[in-house]
Amino acid sequence: MIVKHFQEVEPKVSPDSPGVEVRWVLGKPDGAPRFAMRVIEVAPGHATPRHQHWWEHEVFVLEGEGVVWSRAGERVLRPGVAVYVPGNEEHQFLNTGTGPLRFICVIPHTESGS
Amino acid sequence: MIVKHFQEVEPKVSPDSPGVEVRWVLGKPDGAPRFAMRVIEVAPGHATPRHQHWWEHEVFVLEGEGVVWSRAGERVLRPGVAVYVPGNEEHQFLNTGTGPLRFICVIPHTESGS
Repeated sequence: MIVKHFQEVEPKVSPDSPGVEVRWVLGKPDGAPRFAMRVIEVAPGHATPRHQHWWEHEVFVLEGEGVVWSRAGERVLRPGVAVYVPGNEEHQFLNTGTGPLRFICVIPHTESGS
Repeated sequence: MIVKHFQEVEPKVSPDSPGVEVRWVLGKPDGAPRFAMRVIEVAPGHATPRHQHWWEHEVFVLEGEGVVWSRAGERVLRPGVAVYVPGNEEHQFLNTGTGPLRFICVIPHTESGS
């Protein structure tokens, strides 16, 4: 069994996602065989890239205010909201509040992920 | 894309787990192909069954105080703590506080799960 507070995990910032920090909280290095749990934090006024990929997202909003965009429209995010993004569906998470937008995002293991 | 607040999902109570409510927030009925996100709530003074199974848990504590037990000992749970329970490891989540202990628990699809 592995137990850790998510803030013990070093956040990663991608050059193509300013204002977005990703913590790989549980995943392959912990021995997890199938999927990884990340905690993503989007700073006020920022958003994740609008993109798509083969893998699905299972998301749970922990803190903050925002919207999730898809071609079908925008939906409001607040703490306690869960989002299922199917594989190959274009999507984007935007912080519309004044504090951080923080959410859990679970994905299957991919070659690029850890 | 599917968006819902977790409290829109009907909680399920198992007769062998008094004081424990499970909401299957995202899973097979939503089209999720690989894993399910549940929100589990343990009432004060209660605990999940001490058990083991082939599938792993990836857990994130949302609210409350508790401990997670394994044969290696007990570890403290508080909001923001993540727990990886490997498959086939005996485990139990206990509420040691005065309010609900609420956590996310992600599991791979099993035949019995939804």
